[in-house]
Amino acid sequence: MPQLGLLPRRTWAALLSQLLRPPHSACIPAVGCHSQVAEAVLTSHLKPHQEKPNFIIKIPKGTRDLSPEQMVVREKILDMVVSCFKRHGAKGLDTPAFELKETLTEKYEENSGLIYDLKDQGGELLSLRYDLTVPFARYLAMNKLKKMKRYQVGKVWRRESPTIVQGRYREFCQCDFDIAGQFDPMIPDAECLKIICEILSGLQLGDFLIKMSWRDVRHEMVAKKGLSPEVADRIGEYAQCHGGISLIEQMFQDPRLSQNKQALEGLGDLKLLFEYLTLFGIAEKICFDLSLARGLDYYTGVIYEAVLLQTPTQIGEEPLNVGSVAAGGRYDELVAMFDPKGHKVPCVGLSIGVERIFSIVEQRMKTSFKKVRTTETQVFVATPQKNFLRERLKLIAELWNAGIKAEMLYKNDPKLLTQLHYCENTGIPLVVIIGEQEQKEGVIKLRSVASRKEVAIKRENLVAEIQKRLSES
Amino acid sequence: MPQLGLLPRRTWAALLSQLLRPPHSACIPAVGCHSQVAEAVLTSHLKPHQEKPNFIIKIPKGTRDLSPEQMVVREKILDMVVSCFKRHGAKGLDTPAFELKETLTEKYEENSGLIYDLKDQGGELLSLRYDLTVPFARYLAMNKLKKMKRYQVGKVWRRESPTIVQGRYREFCQCDFDIAGQFDPMIPDAECLKIICEILSGLQLGDFLIKMSWRDVRHEMVAKKGLSPEVADRIGEYAQCHGGISLIEQMFQDPRLSQNKQALEGLGDLKLLFEYLTLFGIAEKICFDLSLARGLDYYTGVIYEAVLLQTPTQIGEEPLNVGSVAAGGRYDELVAMFDPKGHKVPCVGLSIGVERIFSIVEQRMKTSFKKVRTTETQVFVATPQKNFLRERLKLIAELWNAGIKAEMLYKNDPKLLTQLHYCENTGIPLVVIIGEQEQKEGVIKLRSVASRKEVAIKRENLVAEIQKRLSES
Repeated sequence: MPQLGLLPRRTWAALLSQLLRPPHSACIPAVGCHSQVAEAVLTSHLKPHQEKPNFIIKIPKGTRDLSPEQMVVREKILDMVVSCFKRHGAKGLDTPAFELKETLTEKYEENSGLIYDLKDQGGELLSLRYDLTVPFARYLAMNKLKKMKRYQVGKVWRRESPTIVQGRYREFCQCDFDIAGQFDPMIPDAECLKIICEILSGLQLGDFLIKMSWRDVRHEMVAKKGLSPEVADRIGEYAQCHGGISLIEQMFQDPRLSQNKQALEGLGDLKLLFEYLTLFGIAEKICFDLSLARGLDYYTGVIYEAVLLQTPTQIGEEPLNVGSVAAGGRYDELVAMFDPKGHKVPCVGLSIGVERIFSIVEQRMKTSFKKVRTTETQVFVATPQKNFLRERLKLIAELWNAGIKAEMLYKNDPKLLTQLHYCENTGIPLVVIIGEQEQKEGVIKLRSVASRKEVAIKRENLVAEIQKRLSES
Repeated sequence: MPQLGLLPRRTWAALLSQLLRPPHSACIPAVGCHSQVAEAVLTSHLKPHQEKPNFIIKIPKGTRDLSPEQMVVREKILDMVVSCFKRHGAKGLDTPAFELKETLTEKYEENSGLIYDLKDQGGELLSLRYDLTVPFARYLAMNKLKKMKRYQVGKVWRRESPTIVQGRYREFCQCDFDIAGQFDPMIPDAECLKIICEILSGLQLGDFLIKMSWRDVRHEMVAKKGLSPEVADRIGEYAQCHGGISLIEQMFQDPRLSQNKQALEGLGDLKLLFEYLTLFGIAEKICFDLSLARGLDYYTGVIYEAVLLQTPTQIGEEPLNVGSVAAGGRYDELVAMFDPKGHKVPCVGLSIGVERIFSIVEQRMKTSFKKVRTTETQVFVATPQKNFLRERLKLIAELWNAGIKAEMLYKNDPKLLTQLHYCENTGIPLVVIIGEQEQKEGVIKLRSVASRKEVAIKRENLVAEIQKRLSES
């Protein structure tokens, strides 16, 4: 697969080079990536408890705060996911966090017990959304839209047993892309698979595979195309042994199948899909999985799931058990459930499992022991002298007004060393220094934190000089 | 106030020029900006109802979906707000949508009835967050943080009477910036006011004013600094007549006050604040409001609110009643409520009323009758001939892999005119066309939708040529 030209911004490239290089540590425990995150949360829960048992500050079970460090990682990953969705022409959409309870009823089979209901405080009965798919279908039906290519990023809530140690949360973020509408077969389906490949390649998480549920393919062929179960199972033999594209090739070389008109027709859509996936250059990423089955009521066709292949790259390194990082499928009947006249709008879509991806990147970050900047401040305004607060305030306002990201200490008379340490600790690259001497001469000292070199710049040229330096770095 | 160098991206500038110019219509009703949004929602509720009374697709009262058009506006506005927060060195933070019920208890005075509780489904009692301030204070206490400059963007929920026509929703977005920590007086407070000014100037919403609650200033002076109520009320006479900075000047010229040592001391912080605001170049934006009072339990000092001054620019145009678009204040006691040992962490912060800002921009957009692009697609892949689906798929994958935003129709054999119309309707600037002739010659036709000019480009140079054109436009 070619290197995807995702045009990553310099910041992302820099972050990735910090975060995604092979870990220093030679051994990663199988579930370590999640348990450490969870531990941090649990520890912070417990500390106040240990000090004063009657007073416990907690957050709800199965939820977590995202610290500034985590937010930086999250923001970069979401940026990449959304930019891929936009590259494929998707429009944005937002829906409320809760829906009428009846909107969610009968959409999630045995999982409906996991839906969070709101208390009946008078008025409507409401539930927190369980995914972004049902609200999307409701939106299409409510607005009588017959086609739409949309993405949505948002939180969803599920009352799962809070096994935080395995990295599952009761509140988590979903990133969905869906294509609604009646189109020629398999073209939107192929694009959804292409999108998953672009995102997983772009994030440089390592090798991956997309597994299609064989059970659903078989069902499609037998129930809808009328292929005999025996022939379907013969095809299944191949599925078990071979990957996606080689499966198709082998089947058409097998005289028992290729001379069976019914079998050929039953395989038509699948063949078409793999033809398109080949043109997209991703056919070798897709294979069949005999154990995969639909978890949700609304899927009507083949479902798929993407898994990372964590081959140990260093001796003694155990493979990370990260599970599915993306999933999707076709749901042709869901919109009709919301339409008064039962009009169908066929849909196909995918969901990126960003929480798991966050966990992986976080884990790699921890193992690399590199510090991630949690602010973007470019310039610090400092003084070596007392009674220069007013000069600093005037100077920093000039920088802000010029769009420069700037900070100073909220102290009347901070020590110069304290100010310079702050820059080193937080990764601020430039310092402007104003003191008596500078004020007399109408200059400002501009200091590079890395090289510790200082030059005097005429006050009126300061903004231009800073902007020049920032554009070069 | 100087033009803020917010370095707006070209897209933002283009959007603004479309959206924020004076409306064509000569008359805007006072609440029209909200009622139209609401009508759109209500209409879509009612249509299915009219067709089949027993089957109503609805969303919860007081909530709304955001259409792709609305999402474009929202994204641009949030980008500008967040970039200002980052310019001031703030870190990102995220907290769960719900908190333990007890976390929110006794924080909102008579408003606590507006909190959404979750149903007791076994386990903890939970409530949806009412604002982003209380979760921030809980986060600080839980993690024993003594200082932090953070921003947070997220939804909050309030069970207000759903008067959608006035633009109030039960689910809405908040953008908060807060500075926690013990610092020298009035420096962080001044920065918060500066941030409000930068954001409101940067969004080009028209002139605005920040009103400080006089009642709280008086209370501070009398209760905390020991100023006699009579002297405080004498100061209040000025407050009523004059704006912020002139108030301070006049008071120090008045012998009754300037010769009163107690009065001078009581006014010390206020004088300091206005000195800093003057250095920031925003003192003339601040005035006092005798009617403004705290709405929330946790505020401990002066509160402020920013309002837009919608002076009618055209004859017959009524002023828009948009109310407060930003608010904030000091809350020095809130964190201690969550700390087992009652340790205080003084805080000051602000919240941008982005929902009202969205409404204003949306309204201007409607009045201007300009179409906003809801996708960012740069190139459309077309063919004039039948049986060219596979060629199109191969070509579009090349573009995606090069990071180019590209779309095609999901049809085997679409008509060329349909394809070109799609580009014109959705604002896609470039079309690449592949047909028999092009394939034979190893070229692709590149067409500009605006000029309708076509040139043949060697296939191997296509990506480079497209990237060149896009960087120039």
